[in-house]
Parts: sequence; structure tokens; C-alpha cells
Amino acid sequence: MAERPNTPLLDQVDLPSDLNGLSDAQLSALAGELRAETISAVSETGGHLGAGLGVVELTVALHAVFDAPKDKIIWDVSHQCYPHKILTGRRDRIRTLRQKDGLSGFTKRSESPFDCFGAAHSSTSISAALGFAVARDLGGEGGDAIAVIGDGSMSAGMAYEAMNNAGHLNKRLIVILNDNEMSIAPPVGAMSSYLSRLYAGNPFQEFKAAAKGAVSFLPEPLQEGARRAKEMLKGMTVGGTLFEELGFSYVGPIDGHDMEQLLSVLRTVKTRATGPILIHAITKKGKGYAEHRADRGHATAKFDVVTGEQKKTPSNAPSYTSVFAESLIKEATKDDKIVAVTAAMPDGTGLDRFMSRFTSRCFDVGIAEQHAVTFCAGMAAGGMKPFCALYSTFLQRGYDQIVHDVAIQRLPVRFAIDRAGLVGADGATHAGSFDVAFLANLPGFVVMAAADEAELVRMVATAVAHDDGPIAFRFPRGEGVGVEIPDDAQPLEIGKGRMVREGARVAILSFGTRLQEVEKACEALAAKGITPTVADARFAKPLDRDMILGLAADHEALITVEEGAVGGFGSHVAQLLADEGVFDHGLKFRSMVLPDIFIDQAGPREMYEVAGMNAEHIEAKVLDVLGVEVIGKRA
Amino acid sequence: MAERPNTPLLDQVDLPSDLNGLSDAQLSALAGELRAETISAVSETGGHLGAGLGVVELTVALHAVFDAPKDKIIWDVSHQCYPHKILTGRRDRIRTLRQKDGLSGFTKRSESPFDCFGAAHSSTSISAALGFAVARDLGGEGGDAIAVIGDGSMSAGMAYEAMNNAGHLNKRLIVILNDNEMSIAPPVGAMSSYLSRLYAGNPFQEFKAAAKGAVSFLPEPLQEGARRAKEMLKGMTVGGTLFEELGFSYVGPIDGHDMEQLLSVLRTVKTRATGPILIHAITKKGKGYAEHRADRGHATAKFDVVTGEQKKTPSNAPSYTSVFAESLIKEATKDDKIVAVTAAMPDGTGLDRFMSRFTSRCFDVGIAEQHAVTFCAGMAAGGMKPFCALYSTFLQRGYDQIVHDVAIQRLPVRFAIDRAGLVGADGATHAGSFDVAFLANLPGFVVMAAADEAELVRMVATAVAHDDGPIAFRFPRGEGVGVEIPDDAQPLEIGKGRMVREGARVAILSFGTRLQEVEKACEALAAKGITPTVADARFAKPLDRDMILGLAADHEALITVEEGAVGGFGSHVAQLLADEGVFDHGLKFRSMVLPDIFIDQAGPREMYEVAGMNAEHIEAKVLDVLGVEVIGKRA
Repeated sequence: MAERPNTPLLDQVDLPSDLNGLSDAQLSALAGELRAETISAVSETGGHLGAGLGVVELTVALHAVFDAPKDKIIWDVSHQCYPHKILTGRRDRIRTLRQKDGLSGFTKRSESPFDCFGAAHSSTSISAALGFAVARDLGGEGGDAIAVIGDGSMSAGMAYEAMNNAGHLNKRLIVILNDNEMSIAPPVGAMSSYLSRLYAGNPFQEFKAAAKGAVSFLPEPLQEGARRAKEMLKGMTVGGTLFEELGFSYVGPIDGHDMEQLLSVLRTVKTRATGPILIHAITKKGKGYAEHRADRGHATAKFDVVTGEQKKTPSNAPSYTSVFAESLIKEATKDDKIVAVTAAMPDGTGLDRFMSRFTSRCFDVGIAEQHAVTFCAGMAAGGMKPFCALYSTFLQRGYDQIVHDVAIQRLPVRFAIDRAGLVGADGATHAGSFDVAFLANLPGFVVMAAADEAELVRMVATAVAHDDGPIAFRFPRGEGVGVEIPDDAQPLEIGKGRMVREGARVAILSFGTRLQEVEKACEALAAKGITPTVADARFAKPLDRDMILGLAADHEALITVEEGAVGGFGSHVAQLLADEGVFDHGLKFRSMVLPDIFIDQAGPREMYEVAGMNAEHIEAKVLDVLGVEVIGKRA
Repeated sequence: MAERPNTPLLDQVDLPSDLNGLSDAQLSALAGELRAETISAVSETGGHLGAGLGVVELTVALHAVFDAPKDKIIWDVSHQCYPHKILTGRRDRIRTLRQKDGLSGFTKRSESPFDCFGAAHSSTSISAALGFAVARDLGGEGGDAIAVIGDGSMSAGMAYEAMNNAGHLNKRLIVILNDNEMSIAPPVGAMSSYLSRLYAGNPFQEFKAAAKGAVSFLPEPLQEGARRAKEMLKGMTVGGTLFEELGFSYVGPIDGHDMEQLLSVLRTVKTRATGPILIHAITKKGKGYAEHRADRGHATAKFDVVTGEQKKTPSNAPSYTSVFAESLIKEATKDDKIVAVTAAMPDGTGLDRFMSRFTSRCFDVGIAEQHAVTFCAGMAAGGMKPFCALYSTFLQRGYDQIVHDVAIQRLPVRFAIDRAGLVGADGATHAGSFDVAFLANLPGFVVMAAADEAELVRMVATAVAHDDGPIAFRFPRGEGVGVEIPDDAQPLEIGKGRMVREGARVAILSFGTRLQEVEKACEALAAKGITPTVADARFAKPLDRDMILGLAADHEALITVEEGAVGGFGSHVAQLLADEGVFDHGLKFRSMVLPDIFIDQAGPREMYEVAGMNAEHIEAKVLDVLGVEVIGKRA
């Protein structure tokens, strides 16, 4: 373990109120210590390093000028919240970040009153801040409402919706646009180009000299003052009109690493702001450590602070993500109608490889899942074969578009759903728990889950071949199980499952990668003389009716297992069994689904332990349903 | 019936290709006839009159200049598509609009090749058009891609996401912003103010004279030409910079009712456009008939063309919408923490009354459901009691925000879900089929459905009182059943259902307003000597375990009934019964849910006939499950 950094000032700070006695110069020095402490902590825990390093000065300045938790500081996405956590009473636990029972890697209301609004998905902060501002003005809690939002998050429609409403309501509201020109992937979209032009047209070196003078002209409570201030500001900046047209006062660009400038601007805004104001701060993601890496330290494993070497666990099998990406590339070499869409996650979805191979057939639309889905629908209507590659949790953003533009029109959009099920360190906000439930009840949809990486390859082939309506396949985060990947994968027959092992008394019907746990459970059960039948459903929709009704007929018990919440695969099986009258004369039916709780971060296996969905739980369920007494297991 | 209008030119037009021989003057005259025919048709069918009347000239001009269906004309929301339908081979069926087996009130791919992309929810057109444009450039189908989008639809984030991506991709793409300053409700939002300023700063009277000269300078294929054209255009218009900053060429404002100007601009754009271009057309909703009505003829019943008198069926009971609105007002007079949010539907949700009573506590955020939900979450975190009033189908737009910002943070946002279940003339796109499924599997949510208007009032009171996490209540479109409304409604006990009638052998567990059909079924069954037990579940989450397990224990059959798709209430009941081992020894369990099809428009009762969820179907289900032979009913 590297030596802990020397942090004499930071050692005196437990809460933001401890900043009160510090001079501006000391605040600058404190920022340096906070940066060192952040690097040190993340080197031990892994996590999102770059985002936090980009806002170290901003974090110190915000907590020095504003009065949290009365003032509401809302970190958009909140990857950048580690320095904030260190300054708000959580330094003693900062080396438990993203660990089981440790600090969340995101802001979290239940963790601290200083996390006034949790986040993990992007672009929610302006809406939330406006909510706080309105509540305040109606006599509710709180002082100032401050949203800190990255330039990448500005590509999402939700941020625009919030600005559109805020500009209309004209409440006092502070938005800090943290422009690091590097969200998760390289910036895309017209807004991003616009922000670059704002900076190029008026680099802060120029603005810097005039900053102190300029900000003192921020809107005064009097209308005349406001008008005059706006004119003065307009003279100061070449751009910002886009925000001004939406009703915001625009200040910037300012140097987000210059403590003097930050303090000056924030103090003036605090004193003078009336309506909504946007402060455009230019920062460097990864500042002071990872700024020269291609991803600027977006998400990192544990690492050595001195050498920078990451300590990743060696992998045995390729990740599901890379298996998906490689097989899509393979299909795309044979079929030039295949196109692919990612919403700001070319790396996370593996589409970066597809993009470098088929540049004109791959689209990063920014953080814009609503558009991603309907854009795919448009391409499908235009005769292409679009693959919309999203994480399960982010697919929720495009749900109406899935219903309205894809399902109702029966357009053949292919949904490649990564990060299905529980995901580990990112915790509850990133769990892919609901997609089977919200897709499988849409008429005309085909919904698949891969049991292993070979199945995933077959499902990609199936999706390419299926041209009669939408189709989705889901697969988890992490490594495959190491099975051989078919060289020439053939499309599956739609709605047909497969028998995995023939047994007796109890049938286990698995949907997705719990199949490995089912297999393990069967090995343990064999030692007890119980040999379940095991089937891989492959399809939640359409169901393999013959197979399922056959399993029900031939066994006294039927157990479904899936990495999803109630309402999904097991519910569809139950509906079939009920419709067919299978329950009329008795069937020991159980549906193992994710429990009715949001599960905090931990290793994926630990999370499934909490969920009660590992091999031992499946074993216990079989024993229980068969009425086999297990000493010490039953109450 | 009023006399049909005299339409000599229109009588010669069956398809857009028939416009080819007409002079510009004839096209102008044709527009007049098309307007008369549209008014005449809607006077017989009812429907969305104002939107179509606003785009009569634009419809003629688009079909005269472009070559549909090769060129893709995409009508956003598509309330305005009636004139388009008349010009594209459907005049003979235009008087079947919104009727069972008639023309859809929206564009619909399955109805005509001229409806290249269906719509009914707003703000999808630019995404779809970009999809067509990309497909075209990759060798797929189609020529030009043209999105026609209203100013109201521009408040949705999705439209911004699409523009952000289109500006980046720089494909040839035409967006016609149909600015009628009147979407469904009066315009709100900063974008709307911006558009007004564009028009105020440069009314088209001025632009008109220069139009022909100006548009000839639209981008030429050469870069130099494009730059020069942009400069020239900039000189022509005072505004449009917001769109230009997003990468669009801006032309306008133009007079959307001036055929000469429309033809001139569209012809030039067709010849010269390279990248994305936005044409800002000013129109009057309801032009030529309903433009002086407050709602400008947004949605109308059948009417007399001469007197304007609407022919509404007299109502017997107040609508659920008005019962909700009145009871919320009543609660809000007692509790000043109650605030309400609508997404551009103050009238449809009944919040217009709340707004006039509590102006500062009611927010119309525009068509912006994502923001609406998180804005409510922010207000809840700030100590308020927000009611988020949305239609079930539009709630889908805010699903991720419901999961991420509301449920995970367990914030007490109250969701008033109107238009739950099948809705009638608006058809499949407006059906509220999925909300129970997508809400009831979220940990910590309370999900209710009102069985009648008295229950609705109790559920409003319950939602006010419930401060420990999110709560939702759903209710249908249309009139209540005429029960007495409690004067001082008390909150329900969370998770407790109610027994409606005690019977034997079979228990029917109803969730929502199918209870009336259940009651009717019971009357019919009584004549056959069968007396079911009936219960109103009230809650899909948390379930009334004791009541449900009791019903299962005391009856040979249990039937659930709900106005929703599989995965919802019945699935949660099945999960409970399975978990508790109730199926082990046999229970005749059936779950009546909406079928796995999208049901076309018809009267609500007819739609439930298709769905198999009226009294006679419930009766048949009871007889079937009890094994009672019904002559002529069984195969």
C-alpha cells in the first residue's frame, strides 16, 4: 500500500463548517490535499477517479461559499462526489467506497444529509434542483439549490426539459456546467460543439482579468439592474446565447481549477442572483493524476499511486460485452444492413470496436436513450437492421419509445441489453432488474436471455435473422463461463427452449445466467439423491409452451429462476400454467425472482447472496418444495 | 347532416401524384377545399380538428413539392394528419375517423404507405426522420426525410436529443417547426417564449418580400456556398441562433398559410439543402373554423358545421378526471404542502381547476414527463407533497425517473394516473396497459386502482396521508358509475382490500373499475345458481395477503381481474400464491388481463369486448373454471 498523503489542512476538516475559518489561500492548499486524498482512496478501492479529480477545486469552493446541507448541492450522475464525501463527514470511511457495507460510489440520501439528492443516472440534477427551489419558495426546506452537471449530461433531453421549465419559472437557481469535454466517451452532439465554441471564442484567460468586475454586475433584485447586468454580461462573453434564450443568465467560461476565480464568481452569484443562472466552468477530467489517460480515469480498478499500474483480477473468459461486440462485428461483415447505436457508452457496450470497423454504421447519440430508441425505429422503417445497445437500467429511459415507436409499429429493432441483473459495485441504481417485466408484456416482442456466452452468440444471430418485429436479448455484466463459442452460430428457433438435463420429481426452468448456479445446485442435490430436470427457457416471450407444459406434467414441482423482478419470466410462466388449468389439480410451482428490495452495492455474488439466488438458495428451494427436511435450514 | 362542401379540385385528387398537373393558384384553391372537407368530416366523426386546419396549406405544399411515399413525411403527434389522409388515398374513408374498423385518428404504418412512421405521443418525429435519413444514406429506402413538429412538442427532451444528434451527424434532413403557439394547453416554457420572440422580432410580413431571394441562397453543395448562404440567411433573420448553434440552418419565420411562400421555400430547400435545416412556419391552430375558440378545436365531439354546436352524449355521472381534480382541490385547501404537476395537460388531467385555485402550487412543465417526475422528486425531498398527474401511457416517458429518482430514494411522490386501461377512440397508442406491471415491481411503491369514483376520492386522501415513499393510484377515462362521493373521505389502510359480496365456490378478486362488470357477471350467475364471492383488492402493492390467502383457502377457484397487461396485479397474486404453496394442492386460479395484442380504436366497451374483459367474459370464465357446461359457448 502506498503511503498516505500528508494532509495537515484536510485533517482539520470534518464538516463543511470547518472551512469557515480558512483563508482563500488555505482553501487552495486544501484543494491540493483533497486531490491527493482522493487519489489515495481510489487507489485502494477502485472507482470513478477522473470525475472527482476534475471538481476538487469546485467542491471546496462550493462548500466554502454555500451552506450545505441547508443549501442543496446536487451532483449530477455523482461519479464526481468522492471529494464531496471526504469534506462532508465521511473521510473516515472513504476507503470503503463501493465495497459491501461501505460508502456508495454515488450520492445517496440515506447515507448523509449532505447528499440531498442521490444520483447515478445522468441529467437529473437540474430537475431536482428546480424542485428544491420551488419547495423553498413555497415555504419548504432549504436555501439555495445548486446543480453541478457535466457537459456530457447536457446531451440528455431531460436536462433540456428542466432548463426549459426553469427559464419559464424564473426562480433563483444555480446550475454549474462542469465542462470537461469528456464525459464517459469522447463528446458527441451539437451541444458539445457549441460548448467548445463558447470556450474557443472566449478562453477564460481573457475573462479572468475582468471576472471580478463583471460578476459584480450580476442581476440585482431590481428589474432595471437585472437588465443592465445582463447587458454588461453579454458584453463580457461572446456566447452563451443559447442558455440566455432559454432564460438563464450565463457566466463564463471560467477556469474551474482557479480557486480565486471560483470563489469570486460563487460569492457574487450567492449575493446577487435572482433567476436561474448558469456558470460555465472549464475543468480537466482526471486533473492532477489521470488527465493524460485516454479515458481520463473514468472508471478504474485499484491501482498503484506511484506506477499507475491497475490491479485487475486476471480473467478466465471473455466478458459478455466483448462476446456480444465481436459477434455483432462478425454478423455485420456478412450483412451490410446491420447498424449499431450506443447512448454515450461505446466502451461499456463494446461498440467502440464495431465503430472502428464500421464507422459509418455506428452511432453514438450521446446520453439520449429516448432518441436512441426512436432513431433505431426510424432506421428499421428505412430498411436497416439496427442494434440498440444499452444497459438494462438505462433502457428504462427509452421505455415509452420502445412501446410507442417500436412495439406498436412492430418494427424490427434489436435490443442488446447489457448489465442485466445485479451488477456489483455500482449498486441498486445500476441493477438491471426490470427489463424482462417491462418488455415481455409488450405484444409482438421477442425477449431472450443468454445462459452463457455461446448462447449470447446464438442470440445475436437470432436477432439478425428476426425481421418480424422487435427482439431483445439480455446478458449480464462480467465474464462468461468459459464455454466454447460457436464458430458459425445459427439463429435459434423463436420460442423454443432447450433441455439441459433430464431428471425426476422437480424441474428447474432457468432464464439467463443463473443456469450455472442451477447446475451447481443440482450437483449438491445429486449427493442427496435428488436429480432435478433442468431446462434453459431461452425465451421469456414467446414462451416455449410445449416444453413448459411438458415439464409441469412430468414433475411434481416446477421452479423458475431468473435475474429479474416479479412480473417477468416467472409471471409469464404462471399465467400460462393458470390459463391451461395446470394449477387446478396441484403443481408445486415456485418462481425465484429478485426480492422486493433495492440491494446495496457489493460483489455481484454477494448481491445474489442477499437476493437469495445463488446455488445454495436454489438447492434449498428444491428441498423445501419437495418437503425434504434439512437440519439447521428450516425454522 | 350538413351538406357536403363543393370540392371540384379535390374531387380529382386521389393520391399526391395527382397534384402534379396543378398550378400554384390551383394548389391554393385546393387547400381551401381540403379545409372545407376536413371540417365536414370531423363534424361527423369528432376528433382533433384544430391541428389539421392549421396545416392544410402545409400539407398541400409538402405533397406538391415532395414525392411521398418515397420521401418520408413524418407528422409529429399526428393529430394534424387528417388533411394528409384525405390527400393520400383515404378520402373515401375519412368519415370513419376514430371509429371501430375505421381510419385511425393518427398516422399508422399499417394503414397506408404514406404513413411512413406512426405517431400519437409527441416529439418523436425528428428522431424518426433522422433514422430515415441515415438509412437512405446507407443505401436503404427513401428519399427526403421531413419532420413536421409543433412548437408544443419542442418542449420535450426527446426533440432536443434528436436535434443534438442531427446537428452532429449533419445529414440532409428537413424539420418544419409548425409554430401555432397553442399545443394542447397554452404554451409554457422558455423555448416557447423564444419562438415568440423570433416571430415578434421578425414578423413574416417583412420576410415575405425577401423570401424568394433569400431562400435561393440556401446551402449549396460546396462548403463556400454553404458558409455564404448561412451568412446571407443570418442577415435575413434576427433570430434562429438557438437552432443554428445546434447545427441547423434556420429559415423563417414564414407564413404557414401563404401557399406561395410555402411552395417557394420548400422548392428551394428541396433543391439546395445539404445538412439539417429547420423551417419555422407560423400557423393558426383551427384556421378557418375553430381559431377563435379557446382550445382552437383541439379535440372536439361531433358538431354542427353551421352552428358549431357540439353533439355530446349527456353524462350521468362526473368524470373520474373531475372527481380527482375536485378532491385534490379539497385536500389542498386543508394542506398547503400539496402541489401538483402536469405535463402540458392541465385540461385533460383536470388540473386547470387546481391551477386557477392554487396558481403558485401548480406547474405545467410542458411535454416533459421525465422532468415532471424528477421535479416532483425534488419537491418531495424539499418537504412538499407533490401530485404528479399524468396519463398512464405518458407515464411511460418518465419510467427511469420513477425508478431512479423516486423509488430508489423512497420519496413520497404521488402519481395520479389517469386514462388507465383502454381509452377508446385514441386507440392502442393511448391505452394505459402497462403501468401496474412497471410500477408494482418497484420496491417501496404503493400501487392502487380505484373501483369507482368514491374509491378514487379515498385514494386521493390516502395519497395525501402517505408520506413514507411513493404511491400511485390509477383510474380510467370517462364517467364514474354514479355512486355517492364521500364528503369527508378518510385515508385507506395501506395494503387492505375490501370484501364486496360473500359467496361460495369461486372468488373474484377485482383490481380497478372492472368491478362493475364483475357485479354484472354475478347477477347473471345468480340466475344459474352460482354466487361468487367478490373482493376489491384496492392495492396491487402491497397485496392484502390475509384477504387473498383467505379467499384462496375458502374457495375452489380464484379469478383476478384487472385493466392491465400480464405482469401486473394478477402476476403479483400468483407470486404470492406460489410462494405460500397454495398451488401445491390445487387451486383453480385464473388471471384475467388485457390480451397480448394492441387493440385498435373503438368505443371503450367495444375494446373491452375485443379484450374479453366485459361481464359476459367474466361470467364465462367463472362457468369455465367451475366446469359448468354452457350450451353454445364451448367448442
